[in-house]
Amino acid sequence: MQQATHRQSSALRVLATGVCIGVSAGIGYWYGSENGSFKQQDATPALGSEVSRIHAPAKIPNTEYESETKPNYYNDTSKSMHERMESLVLDLQDRLVVALESLEPSKKFIRDRWEREDGKGYGISCVLQDGQVFEKAGVNVSVIEGTLTPGQLRSMRERNPQTAKKLNANEQYDFRVAGVSVVVHPRNPYAPTAHKNYRRFEVYRKGCPEAGPIMAWFGGGADLTPAYLFEDDVKYFHQTLKQACDPHDPQYYPRFKQWCDKYFTNIHRNETRGVGGIFFDDLEDKEPEDLFHFVYDAGNAFIKAYVPLVAKRMTMPYSQRERDWQLIRRGHYAEFNLVYDRGTKFGLMTPGARIESILMSLPLTARWEYMNQPEPGSPEARLLDTVRTTTEWAS
Amino acid sequence: MQQATHRQSSALRVLATGVCIGVSAGIGYWYGSENGSFKQQDATPALGSEVSRIHAPAKIPNTEYESETKPNYYNDTSKSMHERMESLVLDLQDRLVVALESLEPSKKFIRDRWEREDGKGYGISCVLQDGQVFEKAGVNVSVIEGTLTPGQLRSMRERNPQTAKKLNANEQYDFRVAGVSVVVHPRNPYAPTAHKNYRRFEVYRKGCPEAGPIMAWFGGGADLTPAYLFEDDVKYFHQTLKQACDPHDPQYYPRFKQWCDKYFTNIHRNETRGVGGIFFDDLEDKEPEDLFHFVYDAGNAFIKAYVPLVAKRMTMPYSQRERDWQLIRRGHYAEFNLVYDRGTKFGLMTPGARIESILMSLPLTARWEYMNQPEPGSPEARLLDTVRTTTEWAS
Repeated sequence: MQQATHRQSSALRVLATGVCIGVSAGIGYWYGSENGSFKQQDATPALGSEVSRIHAPAKIPNTEYESETKPNYYNDTSKSMHERMESLVLDLQDRLVVALESLEPSKKFIRDRWEREDGKGYGISCVLQDGQVFEKAGVNVSVIEGTLTPGQLRSMRERNPQTAKKLNANEQYDFRVAGVSVVVHPRNPYAPTAHKNYRRFEVYRKGCPEAGPIMAWFGGGADLTPAYLFEDDVKYFHQTLKQACDPHDPQYYPRFKQWCDKYFTNIHRNETRGVGGIFFDDLEDKEPEDLFHFVYDAGNAFIKAYVPLVAKRMTMPYSQRERDWQLIRRGHYAEFNLVYDRGTKFGLMTPGARIESILMSLPLTARWEYMNQPEPGSPEARLLDTVRTTTEWAS
Repeated sequence: MQQATHRQSSALRVLATGVCIGVSAGIGYWYGSENGSFKQQDATPALGSEVSRIHAPAKIPNTEYESETKPNYYNDTSKSMHERMESLVLDLQDRLVVALESLEPSKKFIRDRWEREDGKGYGISCVLQDGQVFEKAGVNVSVIEGTLTPGQLRSMRERNPQTAKKLNANEQYDFRVAGVSVVVHPRNPYAPTAHKNYRRFEVYRKGCPEAGPIMAWFGGGADLTPAYLFEDDVKYFHQTLKQACDPHDPQYYPRFKQWCDKYFTNIHRNETRGVGGIFFDDLEDKEPEDLFHFVYDAGNAFIKAYVPLVAKRMTMPYSQRERDWQLIRRGHYAEFNLVYDRGTKFGLMTPGARIESILMSLPLTARWEYMNQPEPGSPEARLLDTVRTTTEWAS
């Protein structure tokens, strides 16, 4: 088979015929039939007493998520791992943008390319805001270099004893990082929010890039944050991520699932942000080539794990009650990102950082109601029960 | 004159005749005429192109803000300063609730009294949510005791060398605090958000309350956060606070005004949260009696400084454009409170804290738009210019 470049491949994956996805996880729904309409199998009636609002079904082209064809960068050892990671995150960005746009009838992503003023890096921010299906969706790539601030070095050393051994507290280090960061907030309260981030970090002795990195690691993950719980959706999301992890290491999914639950916690509320997924950092336990292929698979799996869930839920009728609850959950989402999130804090601490890209993760709208307490037994209470316990979603 | 107890005084201050307020600062508007209607002198036309929405003028009873009559606790040296501070904050709460309710035609404050599970303190949270005039207003009192956590002790010692001298890093200390905390988010985008907080903190050697406090200090302040700038309003707010400060110490207003600008800054945006006011902490530079009288005056001044501004702006016509801008500014407000605010951080770090009261300060609704940039020369840009510079508002 001919290898497509990553720029071409994203376009090639948009096909003209219907595909059945989600079957492997037992969900068994279709979308993307030939006339572009949406067949919905398990719409739940609206919960609220107010008038329901139904969005017109989007015309959904079909997107093939899996392919035997690997892009050039997948095996191109003539390039540095940093360059190949840059190609991967640009590719993941292109493909996810195409997949998300396929669900949105009202507008396209706006693509901003920006350069750091000091010339030490660039980024591409793709944002779709105030759409019919997506209230706010951001798919950002950044490829940055710089010198670690003392605060950044300290937090890296504190979180990992291996890093503390290799990086001296009193020395100066340069870094390079290439990463993709995604947050999608759909408008329909039944369609879950999701987040994905994959990045590769390299640390050098200051001013000595030609000596190669002292350390390099991968980090990232993907997680789901529904306002209403559909167990099948959550199982499908986790199962799809697990299937991407298992061929690389059977311990990855259980380990990274647990790590995700622990990391994405609003400690002050004793709640996880959502229903989890996978999360890892400082990953350097295998050959870089193997880790890169794992991140390639995990990164791709997000499209397959998430986009169908939006397609399934985006046309469900809902009322003001569900909308308000969604916005309250988005308030908690904003709390996590501003109070705890490592990436956001790293960004806010970085001199000259692009604030708009860092805070793109915040929802378009959020709501904080005093003493909001769902009725026992309600769907809202069920979601709360779920984020206050730990559940094994994939077998 | 007969001295009223603080519980009575709040009721006594609601009078039946019209009063002219704001004259001293040159604003010269009236509200609360005999038929309860609102006479508006300088309504600015709505900026947006969409349909304006005008709230029905509220029926405004009149509230007397100034009085020669001092409540019992003002000079009652038979009581401990902690008890007198408790009386003051309860009084300030009652009076502010009455004043704010006088502007709100649609509903009253809900008053929750709560006790800590360990018996070490109580609070009264008064919240008015989703009103016609006030989107969310919280007026909280808390009277709490406990043992300083190591993190709390460290942050107190770090911020003040005097504290570091008096409190040993390796000893354990108990504390008592009585405070009132207020955040008011009106619905009309032309009516500014405001915050007030006054508290008195006592620190004891652990288990030795009878030996008296090792240290005790006052902290607090009041500040204004408009979405649209009306210079006269800002000057009036600052001037009213300055008038409360000056008789106690002519250095207080300039010093606390500067401290406020520095403290209420979203560092990552290089913006102050609003147009400032006064802020101070660790205040113990005079006799406790004198400081208490200063805090009494400053606490009372808030009603006079702020409530008339809401009365003046709450019926101005506005459109979706102004509403969206207001919600964007509220997003920045939430950022400050979650990322930087000392009180919020202290609360989130306190085991067993009442999260609903701590996060009551967050707005009912907030909005984060990617790359929102007001047109140069627009009223929104003017507000941005103001929060990116420092202005002297009071002479």
